[in-house]
Amino acid sequence: MIKAAVLGATGYAGAELVRLLVGHPDVEIVYLASHSYAGKKFSDIYPGMRSVVDTVLSEDNIVKAADSADVVFLALPAGIASGSVTDEILKKAKVIDLGADFRLHDKAVYEKWYKTEHRGEGLLPEAVYGLPEIHRSEIAGARLVANPGCYTTCSILTLYPLLKNGLIETGMIVIDAASGVTGAGRGEKVTSLFCEVDETMKAYGVTTHRHTPEIEQELSIAAGFPVLVQFTPHLVPMNRGILSTCYAKLKNGAGEEDVAAAYAMYGGEKFIRIVPSPPETRYVKGSNTVDIGYSIDARTGNIVAMGAIDNLVKGAAGQAVQNMNILFSLDEAAGLDVASASTF
Amino acid sequence: MIKAAVLGATGYAGAELVRLLVGHPDVEIVYLASHSYAGKKFSDIYPGMRSVVDTVLSEDNIVKAADSADVVFLALPAGIASGSVTDEILKKAKVIDLGADFRLHDKAVYEKWYKTEHRGEGLLPEAVYGLPEIHRSEIAGARLVANPGCYTTCSILTLYPLLKNGLIETGMIVIDAASGVTGAGRGEKVTSLFCEVDETMKAYGVTTHRHTPEIEQELSIAAGFPVLVQFTPHLVPMNRGILSTCYAKLKNGAGEEDVAAAYAMYGGEKFIRIVPSPPETRYVKGSNTVDIGYSIDARTGNIVAMGAIDNLVKGAAGQAVQNMNILFSLDEAAGLDVASASTF
Amino acid sequence: MIKAAVLGATGYAGAELVRLLVGHPDVEIVYLASHSYAGKKFSDIYPGMRSVVDTVLSEDNIVKAADSADVVFLALPAGIASGSVTDEILKKAKVIDLGADFRLHDKAVYEKWYKTEHRGEGLLPEAVYGLPEIHRSEIAGARLVANPGCYTTCSILTLYPLLKNGLIETGMIVIDAASGVTGAGRGEKVTSLFCEVDETMKAYGVTTHRHTPEIEQELSIAAGFPVLVQFTPHLVPMNRGILSTCYAKLKNGAGEEDVAAAYAMYGGEKFIRIVPSPPETRYVKGSNTVDIGYSIDARTGNIVAMGAIDNLVKGAAGQAVQNMNILFSLDEAAGLDVASASTF
Amino acid sequence: MIKAAVLGATGYAGAELVRLLVGHPDVEIVYLASHSYAGKKFSDIYPGMRSVVDTVLSEDNIVKAADSADVVFLALPAGIASGSVTDEILKKAKVIDLGADFRLHDKAVYEKWYKTEHRGEGLLPEAVYGLPEIHRSEIAGARLVANPGCYTTCSILTLYPLLKNGLIETGMIVIDAASGVTGAGRGEKVTSLFCEVDETMKAYGVTTHRHTPEIEQELSIAAGFPVLVQFTPHLVPMNRGILSTCYAKLKNGAGEEDVAAAYAMYGGEKFIRIVPSPPETRYVKGSNTVDIGYSIDARTGNIVAMGAIDNLVKGAAGQAVQNMNILFSLDEAAGLDVASASTF
Repeated sequence: MIKAAVLGATGYAGAELVRLLVGHPDVEIVYLASHSYAGKKFSDIYPGMRSVVDTVLSEDNIVKAADSADVVFLALPAGIASGSVTDEILKKAKVIDLGADFRLHDKAVYEKWYKTEHRGEGLLPEAVYGLPEIHRSEIAGARLVANPGCYTTCSILTLYPLLKNGLIETGMIVIDAASGVTGAGRGEKVTSLFCEVDETMKAYGVTTHRHTPEIEQELSIAAGFPVLVQFTPHLVPMNRGILSTCYAKLKNGAGEEDVAAAYAMYGGEKFIRIVPSPPETRYVKGSNTVDIGYSIDARTGNIVAMGAIDNLVKGAAGQAVQNMNILFSLDEAAGLDVASASTF
Repeated sequence: MIKAAVLGATGYAGAELVRLLVGHPDVEIVYLASHSYAGKKFSDIYPGMRSVVDTVLSEDNIVKAADSADVVFLALPAGIASGSVTDEILKKAKVIDLGADFRLHDKAVYEKWYKTEHRGEGLLPEAVYGLPEIHRSEIAGARLVANPGCYTTCSILTLYPLLKNGLIETGMIVIDAASGVTGAGRGEKVTSLFCEVDETMKAYGVTTHRHTPEIEQELSIAAGFPVLVQFTPHLVPMNRGILSTCYAKLKNGAGEEDVAAAYAMYGGEKFIRIVPSPPETRYVKGSNTVDIGYSIDARTGNIVAMGAIDNLVKGAAGQAVQNMNILFSLDEAAGLDVASASTF
Repeated sequence: MIKAAVLGATGYAGAELVRLLVGHPDVEIVYLASHSYAGKKFSDIYPGMRSVVDTVLSEDNIVKAADSADVVFLALPAGIASGSVTDEILKKAKVIDLGADFRLHDKAVYEKWYKTEHRGEGLLPEAVYGLPEIHRSEIAGARLVANPGCYTTCSILTLYPLLKNGLIETGMIVIDAASGVTGAGRGEKVTSLFCEVDETMKAYGVTTHRHTPEIEQELSIAAGFPVLVQFTPHLVPMNRGILSTCYAKLKNGAGEEDVAAAYAMYGGEKFIRIVPSPPETRYVKGSNTVDIGYSIDARTGNIVAMGAIDNLVKGAAGQAVQNMNILFSLDEAAGLDVASASTF
Repeated sequence: MIKAAVLGATGYAGAELVRLLVGHPDVEIVYLASHSYAGKKFSDIYPGMRSVVDTVLSEDNIVKAADSADVVFLALPAGIASGSVTDEILKKAKVIDLGADFRLHDKAVYEKWYKTEHRGEGLLPEAVYGLPEIHRSEIAGARLVANPGCYTTCSILTLYPLLKNGLIETGMIVIDAASGVTGAGRGEKVTSLFCEVDETMKAYGVTTHRHTPEIEQELSIAAGFPVLVQFTPHLVPMNRGILSTCYAKLKNGAGEEDVAAAYAMYGGEKFIRIVPSPPETRYVKGSNTVDIGYSIDARTGNIVAMGAIDNLVKGAAGQAVQNMNILFSLDEAAGLDVASASTF
């Protein structure tokens, strides 16, 4: 049994991770911590887990976590992990960071977009961007995995094959995305109140959202040269789900067959389905699956490529488990669902 | 592996059953049928199941189902099962009927409330009411299990200990219940349209709902004499969940300790949790769990007892799997979750 | 033009009041105040009101409000109004208090249920309970109107005719009610976050909710003797709306005709509709209307009476405007809608 | 008083129109018709209107409507109006068609996108596209007004100033839009059921949606040359609201000031607000207002312009009333709200 520790266990991503780890056949949770609720039972905060996870929560302490566990999951606000993960920690346990601190390879880019100091620059070179479908082999040997963001996972996987195969113009790539409200976290903010979110839709972070450089980093790798994207997230009145609708001009000569061939790179992936109609977030809810569909518009010469994930699963906790499975040479799908846990 | 057949697989309860059976370690689905969508793939109707259940749906045919399976699940409209289940079928396979046809022991009561003829009177004596926490031993030896209704499961389990122990007056028992919209089924009705249900709440079937006699049948058994209830269901804008808020006058002398002792009858049950605060439907969503809580009001002398279930799991498909597990001497919890599949 | 002041203008009830007053033909808002957002524009907090109410918010100051206005509306947390309304204030302006401080005639009852000191006992005798359909003539001459609560308005109006006419037993009266989330206010609480409320239902304040004594006060007046009720509120995932489902045993001999005759007392009321099917909250959304329906159950001898209102309109701001109309001898329906503002 | 007739009064747009006309100070409804519900009361179908509109519905009959009314509103499925509006009808009454039949000036374009024959070609030259902010003067003298679609109203008004002033490249204009479910109508379709729409999001009609040519027609007029757009609608779990997020490359040299100057064309418009933060659909709910906001991205050289409307008001019934007001020389805002009818 792999011994796992979770810091930040009572945020939405952390709690989803607990749910998945509890159901994982090869994992035992040995350390469960929460800054806000230390001293309370996990099931006091998430009563759905009563009689299943009644563990009393510890204070977030990465040293204690690393002492007791084989793998430490961090589900913490931006800026904390960069100051607390050290070489010493990594000698004791693998670290999978669900936050943003080790995702961007360039410290300056991080500090520009996150407007906070990065205190762990020394570890940036070895941190691996934990998107298994793209970086599987590097993940396998890593000590520190930077688990990708939700919008980014969805958007990168949707566009990657097109850029990797040089099928689209890069002068104007639009990613218009939408998220359920769990993406905003469990903080006590007026903007997250039911009555402020229900029955309405809005864009936010227009031209400034922090997931932009992360998407650009990976798509630039795919393209082989720097690529910019116009990324706009929206908030939608639902708990879970991310939908990315991506637009680009197809290169002259690129057609249906080229596009199909490009997406065939995902043929062996357990968690990616290329679907014939536009993907829908409910069809991946609770699962670690990415549904991707696309349409080529002969009138305009554009391609519209769409991806859907559950932001808390493939966009956070599920992908973290997938990364753990890779790190420990388990079946990559252990403890994860392909089918939507909820059929509606 | 137990071979299972599902008739009515594309209704909401049927589809949930398919989801659960697919994840069950000891079951293989050998026959999947749908009157409305025969000839299509199951995953065309429920695309969340793409790559998991791509089986082409057969026409509903109970004979073929019984020929190929060890257990046949029926998720059909009222009145069909009573005309198609026969002794011959039952000699070939166990039948678990998710519909209402074999729940009421008295044909006349059935016909009065359902306003349709019962065509299988001969099987009524042997049909077992499939509420495991009350009738476990009879279920174990049954050929034909009548899986309880959703409101009924929740309401009976909430009130049963109070009546069994003679703690409440029976002159006025009120069950005020609410359901998510999956309870209304997948039929194309104006009243089930999103814009007719969203952002509103209403009672329906006031004084006339068909689950009334089913609740009364079981509570009368508990009490040892005929008991009537005032049952009012409501529709709430959510997909899943049933909440029953039940009211009765405590008998003189009955107090907190008596009530606690009565509910202790559920102490060994895997799927019942007695909770200290009012139960909430999200905490049982996706699981087979019943959460029950209660308050005694010293001012009024009443007890308010509340139960919460997922109408599609403990209220339908999950309970059907639980019954199957009992029928085939498996672990009663095999393939079922205690923790809520969705923490929020 | 009547000059109006609103204190607590940025809470949900306060903001709804602003919306109604802006559309009122005979009213001019002269003072708009908010403790939390003083110094900001009202339309910064409620951008739907941009270009309509761009007034900068003042600090809540009842003296300044009374100096400048003919009527002062208070939409403040419990305990503040009782300490700030004085005879001096009332000499300058009429006061309509949307809070609870002056609703209960008995100081001790208030302090028991609200667990806070009442600091304005001297004004309790003259405060009028502002339920126009019951106390219209007293309201007309009042200086201080205690605007009823949301659950209470709905529940009292639904049950009043039955008690007034002695048609029901009073040994066990059950009021099972449900509210949209605006009823929980705009405070930054985890329990009001979208993801904690969406797709779930629960009871709260079981046996202890503060609206209980308010309902009992008015129903006791109706009955002519002290009446207790078993009141249980529930939270439902929708913005607005209250539904009260009320249960009582009909007295021997009381029947359909007696009940119809009792409800006929509302025949001349503009804002009460007796409806033939169970009322639904969406049909009164945005309007000041109460829809009331009932069913008599011959099997059990009970009556099930149901009422629906918009908690922010008839349950708060609309009723406050109705009271203002009465105080100033305007058409009682001025500035108020009978039809639902939203057809769905 | 202007005498109004409504055909198709029980669809969502028709019913919203009835709601607005009932509150209009200068209008009397003289003819109310519904194909599906002829013979029933309007308030049987929309019980929120009980005691307000209890009119018995007639069969849809445009001749009778034109005989009795000054203005006939048509809220009918595509293809019906083109065959029933005639010169004879137009001699008797003004016609405002909320459907698509007279919006596209080119019959061939209509037939290509709508895949149905256009039977009223003779009237196409005189039909005026009823977007008041663009075509006010032509509307004033028209006999037949083609009321714009919902997505189109929102998208055209958002992009028009940019194209009119030549500020954006036209090689790739992306309109990524989302709608509440009322946009799908009141038809009994599985895809509109609550449980199929709640808690999920999807794109639909990708590259093929019928509002595309309507947007292109008007934006081409603005630009002075043919313009294509990439339009993708999405379905969002809410009743009302449309949000259009539009993307284009700014021309070299075009900057913040030019864009602000372009949008200043709406300075005198009562129903357009240029807002400093991203618009949100709830802030225009129930009102006839369009909120428009934009961001220029210096990194990418793109502009992101966003518009929000209520699809049933400015996107249908409200705009129809606005057109009627122009036709009959009333105050253009009569009977319409600027502020959101619902503050949340």
